[in-house]
Amino acid sequence: MASWKQRKRARNLKAGQPPGYLAPSEKPESDRAKVFILEFSADSFAQREVSDAAALRQIDFSDGRVRWINVFGVRDVALLQALGELLGLHALALEDIATTDQRPRAEDYGDNLHIVMRDLKADDAGNIVANQISIVLNRRMLVTFQEVGAAAGPDVLDPLREKLRVGAGVLRASREDYLAYRIVDAVIDNYFVLVERVGDGIDRIQEQALGESDAAFLEEAHQMRRNMIFLKRSLWPVRGMVFGMRHSEDALFTESTQLFLRDAAEHVEQVVDSVEMLNESLTSALDIHLTGNGNRLNETMRVLTVMSAFFIPLTFIVGVYGMNFAHMPELSWRYGYLGVWVVMLGVTAGLLAYFRRRRWM
Amino acid sequence: MASWKQRKRARNLKAGQPPGYLAPSEKPESDRAKVFILEFSADSFAQREVSDAAALRQIDFSDGRVRWINVFGVRDVALLQALGELLGLHALALEDIATTDQRPRAEDYGDNLHIVMRDLKADDAGNIVANQISIVLNRRMLVTFQEVGAAAGPDVLDPLREKLRVGAGVLRASREDYLAYRIVDAVIDNYFVLVERVGDGIDRIQEQALGESDAAFLEEAHQMRRNMIFLKRSLWPVRGMVFGMRHSEDALFTESTQLFLRDAAEHVEQVVDSVEMLNESLTSALDIHLTGNGNRLNETMRVLTVMSAFFIPLTFIVGVYGMNFAHMPELSWRYGYLGVWVVMLGVTAGLLAYFRRRRWM
Amino acid sequence: MASWKQRKRARNLKAGQPPGYLAPSEKPESDRAKVFILEFSADSFAQREVSDAAALRQIDFSDGRVRWINVFGVRDVALLQALGELLGLHALALEDIATTDQRPRAEDYGDNLHIVMRDLKADDAGNIVANQISIVLNRRMLVTFQEVGAAAGPDVLDPLREKLRVGAGVLRASREDYLAYRIVDAVIDNYFVLVERVGDGIDRIQEQALGESDAAFLEEAHQMRRNMIFLKRSLWPVRGMVFGMRHSEDALFTESTQLFLRDAAEHVEQVVDSVEMLNESLTSALDIHLTGNGNRLNETMRVLTVMSAFFIPLTFIVGVYGMNFAHMPELSWRYGYLGVWVVMLGVTAGLLAYFRRRRWM
Amino acid sequence: MASWKQRKRARNLKAGQPPGYLAPSEKPESDRAKVFILEFSADSFAQREVSDAAALRQIDFSDGRVRWINVFGVRDVALLQALGELLGLHALALEDIATTDQRPRAEDYGDNLHIVMRDLKADDAGNIVANQISIVLNRRMLVTFQEVGAAAGPDVLDPLREKLRVGAGVLRASREDYLAYRIVDAVIDNYFVLVERVGDGIDRIQEQALGESDAAFLEEAHQMRRNMIFLKRSLWPVRGMVFGMRHSEDALFTESTQLFLRDAAEHVEQVVDSVEMLNESLTSALDIHLTGNGNRLNETMRVLTVMSAFFIPLTFIVGVYGMNFAHMPELSWRYGYLGVWVVMLGVTAGLLAYFRRRRWM
Amino acid sequence: MASWKQRKRARNLKAGQPPGYLAPSEKPESDRAKVFILEFSADSFAQREVSDAAALRQIDFSDGRVRWINVFGVRDVALLQALGELLGLHALALEDIATTDQRPRAEDYGDNLHIVMRDLKADDAGNIVANQISIVLNRRMLVTFQEVGAAAGPDVLDPLREKLRVGAGVLRASREDYLAYRIVDAVIDNYFVLVERVGDGIDRIQEQALGESDAAFLEEAHQMRRNMIFLKRSLWPVRGMVFGMRHSEDALFTESTQLFLRDAAEHVEQVVDSVEMLNESLTSALDIHLTGNGNRLNETMRVLTVMSAFFIPLTFIVGVYGMNFAHMPELSWRYGYLGVWVVMLGVTAGLLAYFRRRRWM
Repeated sequence: MASWKQRKRARNLKAGQPPGYLAPSEKPESDRAKVFILEFSADSFAQREVSDAAALRQIDFSDGRVRWINVFGVRDVALLQALGELLGLHALALEDIATTDQRPRAEDYGDNLHIVMRDLKADDAGNIVANQISIVLNRRMLVTFQEVGAAAGPDVLDPLREKLRVGAGVLRASREDYLAYRIVDAVIDNYFVLVERVGDGIDRIQEQALGESDAAFLEEAHQMRRNMIFLKRSLWPVRGMVFGMRHSEDALFTESTQLFLRDAAEHVEQVVDSVEMLNESLTSALDIHLTGNGNRLNETMRVLTVMSAFFIPLTFIVGVYGMNFAHMPELSWRYGYLGVWVVMLGVTAGLLAYFRRRRWM
Repeated sequence: MASWKQRKRARNLKAGQPPGYLAPSEKPESDRAKVFILEFSADSFAQREVSDAAALRQIDFSDGRVRWINVFGVRDVALLQALGELLGLHALALEDIATTDQRPRAEDYGDNLHIVMRDLKADDAGNIVANQISIVLNRRMLVTFQEVGAAAGPDVLDPLREKLRVGAGVLRASREDYLAYRIVDAVIDNYFVLVERVGDGIDRIQEQALGESDAAFLEEAHQMRRNMIFLKRSLWPVRGMVFGMRHSEDALFTESTQLFLRDAAEHVEQVVDSVEMLNESLTSALDIHLTGNGNRLNETMRVLTVMSAFFIPLTFIVGVYGMNFAHMPELSWRYGYLGVWVVMLGVTAGLLAYFRRRRWM
Repeated sequence: MASWKQRKRARNLKAGQPPGYLAPSEKPESDRAKVFILEFSADSFAQREVSDAAALRQIDFSDGRVRWINVFGVRDVALLQALGELLGLHALALEDIATTDQRPRAEDYGDNLHIVMRDLKADDAGNIVANQISIVLNRRMLVTFQEVGAAAGPDVLDPLREKLRVGAGVLRASREDYLAYRIVDAVIDNYFVLVERVGDGIDRIQEQALGESDAAFLEEAHQMRRNMIFLKRSLWPVRGMVFGMRHSEDALFTESTQLFLRDAAEHVEQVVDSVEMLNESLTSALDIHLTGNGNRLNETMRVLTVMSAFFIPLTFIVGVYGMNFAHMPELSWRYGYLGVWVVMLGVTAGLLAYFRRRRWM
Repeated sequence: MASWKQRKRARNLKAGQPPGYLAPSEKPESDRAKVFILEFSADSFAQREVSDAAALRQIDFSDGRVRWINVFGVRDVALLQALGELLGLHALALEDIATTDQRPRAEDYGDNLHIVMRDLKADDAGNIVANQISIVLNRRMLVTFQEVGAAAGPDVLDPLREKLRVGAGVLRASREDYLAYRIVDAVIDNYFVLVERVGDGIDRIQEQALGESDAAFLEEAHQMRRNMIFLKRSLWPVRGMVFGMRHSEDALFTESTQLFLRDAAEHVEQVVDSVEMLNESLTSALDIHLTGNGNRLNETMRVLTVMSAFFIPLTFIVGVYGMNFAHMPELSWRYGYLGVWVVMLGVTAGLLAYFRRRRWM
Repeated sequence: MASWKQRKRARNLKAGQPPGYLAPSEKPESDRAKVFILEFSADSFAQREVSDAAALRQIDFSDGRVRWINVFGVRDVALLQALGELLGLHALALEDIATTDQRPRAEDYGDNLHIVMRDLKADDAGNIVANQISIVLNRRMLVTFQEVGAAAGPDVLDPLREKLRVGAGVLRASREDYLAYRIVDAVIDNYFVLVERVGDGIDRIQEQALGESDAAFLEEAHQMRRNMIFLKRSLWPVRGMVFGMRHSEDALFTESTQLFLRDAAEHVEQVVDSVEMLNESLTSALDIHLTGNGNRLNETMRVLTVMSAFFIPLTFIVGVYGMNFAHMPELSWRYGYLGVWVVMLGVTAGLLAYFRRRRWM
C-alpha cells in the first residue's frame, strides 16, 4: 500500500519508456506475486494456488465453471505478462494494472472489460491510503489484481471469498458478470465505513471549532482537509467507472445484473453526497473557528485597553507628585493628598462613563 | 427519526452483505410496523388496520377501488418481504425502503415506480431531521413507507388522509397517480414551512451580524450553516425525483396529473431558490460580521494607542524628576516645576497635532 | 407590495391545501380588486372600469378590437375565479397568480400563455421590493394581474396605457402579442433604472472601501449584498421566461414580434451582466476594505510598539534612581545625573537603529 | 468614449420608449457624425467624405467595387435613419448601434449581419474604457459605426485604412467578408496590447504584495480588480460573437475566410486565457498580501509583548522602593540596593527562559 | 525559452499586421534555425542536417521511408516559409508555429494536422517555463518545430531519437502516426516529472504551514500559486488537444494508434487530476496557516494582557506612596508598608481568580 508520493515516483521512472512498458521490480524477491484460482459452479467449489505462469496455461476453460483468478501483488513482470497473454490483454491495460496511481475507471478493450478501483482505508495515523484493485472481465473468467500481497491482513474481498466457499446465496449460482458486480459493490460498501470514520473526525473538529484551538487542532483539521481532497479525487471518478460498466460495448452484463449496477451507481452517488456534505461541514467549521478567533481577540484587546486606559493616567498623576522639585506648592497644601485622590477618582469616573457609552464595559 | 450519524451506522452494518439484504432489527418488538389500508372510491371510504402479512395477501384488487397502503416503520423484515412479494417489488427497492439514508429519487422497476422522499422538520434544538417516505406506485395500488411509527405525533400526510375521509374535493374521485402527486405535493409544501423557520433563524443572525457576538451567536451561525448544507443536500435531488416521475417509462401518470407534476416541479424550484438565497444571505452576514470585527479591533487598538502615546512620554518625564540624585540642578530652579508642566503640555500638543494629521482623533 | 417574509408566510398558509386552492383573503374589503378594460384598434380607444364578475361575462370578443384587461390586486377570490372561467385558465395558473412569490417564468397551458414577472423597485430604505405582474395571453385578449392596487402610485405600465390613449406609434395598430412584448419590455427597461440606482450605492461603497468605515458603512454594504442576492434571484429566471415566450408551442407571437423578443432577451442579458459586474465590484470592494483594515491595524500597532519600546526601558531606568535606598552610591556621584541621561540616550539610539533596520520607522 | 456610468444613464433615458427609438441628441451640433466612404477594387482606391444623407442615396452599388462606409459618431439621428434605410436595417439594430452599452455579439437580420464589438483601451488614469464599434455586413457593402468622432486621435482601424490606401497585400483583392474579418481581427489583436499593459500593473502588485502596503497599493489593487471585472465582462461575449459570425445563416463568409475566423476565435481564447490567468494571479497576490499582513502583525505584537513583559515587572519593583513609607526595613539594609538588582536580574533571566521555550525570541 | 512577458511582447509586435504575418527576426543571426531530417524504415536509419530551404525541396518522398523533420528555432522566416510551401501548410498554421504563446490544441487543415504542445519544466529559480513544440503531421512526413535551439541542452524528445537510432522496439517499424503519438506521449510523461517536483515544493509549504512563517515562506507559497495557475492554464487545453487528435477528420491515425491515444488521454486526465489535488492542498495549507496565525496572535495578546493586567494596578499603587506630599498619613503608619503589600497581594489574587474564570490562564 504505497503513499501518494511513492506512487508518483514509480510513475516517473517510466517517463521516456514506450507505452505498455512494465518496469522490472527493483526488489524482485519481495515482489513475487501470489495467484489463487477460485473455481466454482452452483454445486462445486475449489481453490488452488498457482505457482508459475506455466500452470496458468494449463487451465481448461471449457468445463463451464466460473473462474476467479486472484492476483496479489502487481510487480511480478513475468507473471503479469503470462496473464496478459492468457487473457489476450492489451499491453496498455497491463501497464495500467502494474502502475498503481490510476484513476478509477472502466475501459473497453474489445473482449475484455478493464476496471480500475481503489480500496480506501485510513491508516493508523488517520491518513487515507489507497490499494488499487484492477478487475479484468471477459466471457471466460474474471481476474482481480490487488496491489497488496495476500499476507497484508484482512482484505475487502475476503467476505466474498468466504461466501463462495460456504455456498449460500445466489453468488455460487451466478456467472462472472454478477461476481464482478459483487466485487465492485463490496469495495463501494467499504467506502461507507471509511466515510463514517472520517465523519467522526470532522465531528471532533466541529466540537472544538467554537472553542480555542492549539496546533493539534490545526494539525487534525489540515489532515481532514487533505483526506477530503483525496477522497473527492478518488470517489468522483467512480461514478464514471460504474457508468462505463453499465455501458460497455460488449454487453457483458445480463439485464438483471444491470439493475444491480444501477443500484451500485446510486450507492456511489450517496457516498459522494456524504463526502460533499462532510467537506462543506469542515469548511464551515473552520470558517466559524476563524470568526471565533476574531471575537476572542477583540475581547482580549478590550480588557487590555480598558485596564490600560484606567491606570495609565492615574500612574502619570502620582508620578507628578513623586518629583523632587524644591518648589512644588501642592506638596505642602493641607489637602493636597486628598485632592489628588479626588482628581484620580474623577478621571476614573469619566473614563468609566466614556467606556460605558461605547459599550466596552 | 434517526440522526445522520445513526443512519450512517445502520448503513455500515450492511457492508459485506449481499445486495437486497434486509438486516434483522436488533430490537424486534419496538420495530413492529403498523399497516393501515385506505380503500376509497368517489362514494366510499374505508380504513382498516392489517396485522400481519397473511391479511395482505387476501386483498381483492379487482373491485375498482383505489387503495393506499400506509406502512409505518421500516424495520419489520417479515412484513416488508410480504409486501415486496405482493407488489412484485425488486429486492433492491425493498432494501432502499428499509435503509433510511437514501437520496430522494424516482426509480423505474418496470411495473412499479419507486419514489424516495424526505420529510424534513426542525427538532427542538433547531437541527433539521429527516423522515424518509418511500412511495411505491403501480396500476393496482399505492404504498407509502414511513420511517417513523404511527404514534410519533402529527404526520405530514395526515391532512390528506383526513380529506379522503371527509370526501370533499377531487381527491376521492381520482386514481392512484393523482394521490401520488398529492403526497409528493404535501411533502414539498411542507418544505416551505421549514424554510420559513430556517429563514427566521437567519434573520436573527443577520440582525446580530453587525453588532458584537458571543459564543452563542457563533453556535447558532454554525448550526444554520449545517442546516443549510443538509437542506441543500436534501432538496437538490428532489428536482431529479420530480423529473423522474414526469418521465417514468410506463406512463403511470395521466395527462392532467402531468400538469400538476409540472407545478410541483416549479414549487421545488422555488424552495431550492429560497434556500440558495438564504444560504447566500447567511454567508454575506458572516462576511460582514468578520469585517465588523476587524473594524472594532481597529477602533479598540486606536484608543489604546492614543492613550498610551499621550501618557507614556509624560510618565517618563515625571519619572526623571523623581530621581534622587544629589546633583540635579533642575530640581532647585525657581521655575523648574512650572517648566516641566510647560514641556509636558508641549509634548501633548505635539502628539495631538500628529494624531490629528493621521486622522486618529 | 409585500416583503419577502410576508410572501413566504402567505405561501405557508397554503401548506396542506389542494393544488389550485385560492386562500380567501383575511381582510376582504381592502383586498377588493379593481378591473379596467382597455379596448382599442388602430382608430379607436376606450377604457372602462368593470365592477364585478358578471360584467366580464358580457364582453363581446368578436368585434376585432384588441383587449387588455388590467386587474389590480390579486386577493379577490371571486373575481379571480370569474376571470379564470372566462379565460379557460387552469386552476394552477390561477393559484400562481394569487400567490405572489413566484419565480419569473412563462408557462404554456394550451390556449393560454401564462407569464409571471416581477416589477422591482427600491423602497425608501433602499431595499429592493418586488411587485408581481402576471400576464395571461391568448388569441382573444391579454390580461395583466398586478399585485398592488391601482391607487398605489405611479405604475411601470402607465406610460404604455398613456401611449395607447394618445394613439401615436405602432402600439395601437398591433395585436395582443406585440402588446405582451411591450409590457415585458417595459418591465425589463425598468430594471436598468433600478440597476443604476443600485450601482450608485455600490459606487459609494467603493469610495469608502479604501478609507475607514463605521457601522453605517457595514450596514449599507450588507444591504447591498442582500439587494444583489435578491436581484440575482429575480433576474436570472427572466432569461428562461423570455426563452419560454419565444418558444411557446402555440405560435402566439408573429414573426416580427419574435425579432422584438430576441431584442428583449438581449436586454435581459445586459441587465444580468450589469448585476454580475456590480456584484463582483462589491465583493472586490469589501475584500479590499478588509485588506485595508489589516494594513491600518498593522500601522496602529507599529506606532504603539515603537512608542512603548522607546519609553518603557527609559521609565525603568529613571525608576531605579527614584528608589530610596540608603546606600545607592550612584546617587551621590558628581556626574550621576548626567550619566543617566547619557545611558538613556544610548538606549534610545540603539532602539532607533534596531527599528530602522526592521524598517519600522 | 463614455464611461460606464454615462452609458447607463443614456440607457435609462430610453426606459418607457418604444423599441427602436433613437433618442435625439441633446447637443446636436457636437454630435454631428462624419461619414467617409472607402471604395476599392484590386487596382483602384478612392476615399471621399459624405456630408449628408442625400449623398448616400446616390451611390451606385452595381460597379463591382468593395465599399466600406466609415461612420464616426452615433448620435446623429437623421444620418443613422438614412443609413438604416439604405441598408434595409431593422429598427432594433439601429437602436443597438446608437446605444453604446451593448454586449459584444453577432446578430442575423436576414440580409444583414450585425456585429457589435468593443475597442478597449486604458485611459490616462489606468481605467479601461470602451469604444463601441458596430459592423453591418451584407453582400453590397460593409458599414462600421464608431462611437468616437474621427478627430479623437489614433484609431484601431487606421492601419487597415492605410493598407487599403497603399494597396499591398491581399486586402484590396478581397471582398467585404474578408474586410469584416480583418476589422474584427484588428480589434482582437488590440486586446493583446491592452492585456499586456494590465499585466504590467499586476506585476507591480505582485512585487509589492510581499512587502508592506499603503493606501496607494490598495487603490491600485482595487483598480486592477475593477479592470479585470470589466475585461472579463467585455471579452467573454466576444467568443459568442465570433461563433455567431462563423455560423451566420446566410453564408456571408467564404470558405477561406471561415478558416481565418477560426483563427480569430483561437485568438479570443488566448486573450481570455491570459485574462483568467492575470485574474488568478491578482487574487493570489492579494491573498498572499493578507497572509503577510497577518505575519507582520504577529511579529510586531511579539516585540511589544516581549518588551513589555521584561520591563513591566522591573518597573514595579523599582516603584516599590521608591515609596516613602517611614518604615521600610529594606531601604536601610546594607546590600538592599544590590539585592534589588539581583532580584531584577533573576526575573529577567526567568522571563528569558520562558520566552525561549515558547520560541518567541 | 521565453518567459510569459517576452512571449506577450512578441505577440504585440504583430498587432496591426495581416494574419499569417511572420515578423522578421530582430537578431537574424542568432535566430537561424537548424533542421535535422531523420529518415527510417524497419531496417534502415539515417540522420542528416539540412542547411537551407533548397535542400528541403530535393527530398524524395516516394521511397516509402518514414520521415521526421526536426526544426529547432522558429524565428527563421525564410526557412519556415520554405517548409510551409513543402508541406502545403496554411499561412495561419505557420504563424502559430512562429508565435510561441499558443494554447495547446490540435487543428485540422485538410491534409495536415497541426498540433501545438508545451514542454514544461521548472527553471533554476523554481518557476515553470514553457517550450512550445509544434507538430505537423500528414501522410508523407512528420515535422516538429521546437522553440529552443538544438544546443539548448537535453531535450524531451532526445530519448525518442535515440530509440530510433538504436532500432529496438516497435518505433522503427511504425509509421508517422505512431511516431506522432510517441512524441505527444513523451511530452505528457514529462509532465509527471514536473508535477512531482512541484508536489515536493507544496509538501514543504504544508510542513511549514502549521508553524510560523517568514517572507521566504510567503515568497515560495506565492511562487507555488503562480506555478499552479500556469500549470492549470497549460494542462487543461491538452485534454482538448488529445481529443482533437483522436477525432481528426482525415483518419490519420490507425485503429491501433487510436487505442494508444486513448491511453494518452487517460494520462492527461491523471496529470490534470494531480494538479487539481496539489492546488487544493496548497489552498488548504494557506488557509490553515492563516488560522494558525490567528491562533498565535490570540496567544501572544493573552500573555501581554495578563502581564499588563497584573502589574499595571500594582505599579499605580506603589506610585501613590512614592508621592512627596507633606501630609500623607499612611506613610507614617507602623504597618503601612506591610499593608500596601497585603493590598497588592489581594489585587493580584482577585485578578488571578478573574482570569482563571475566563480561562485565560
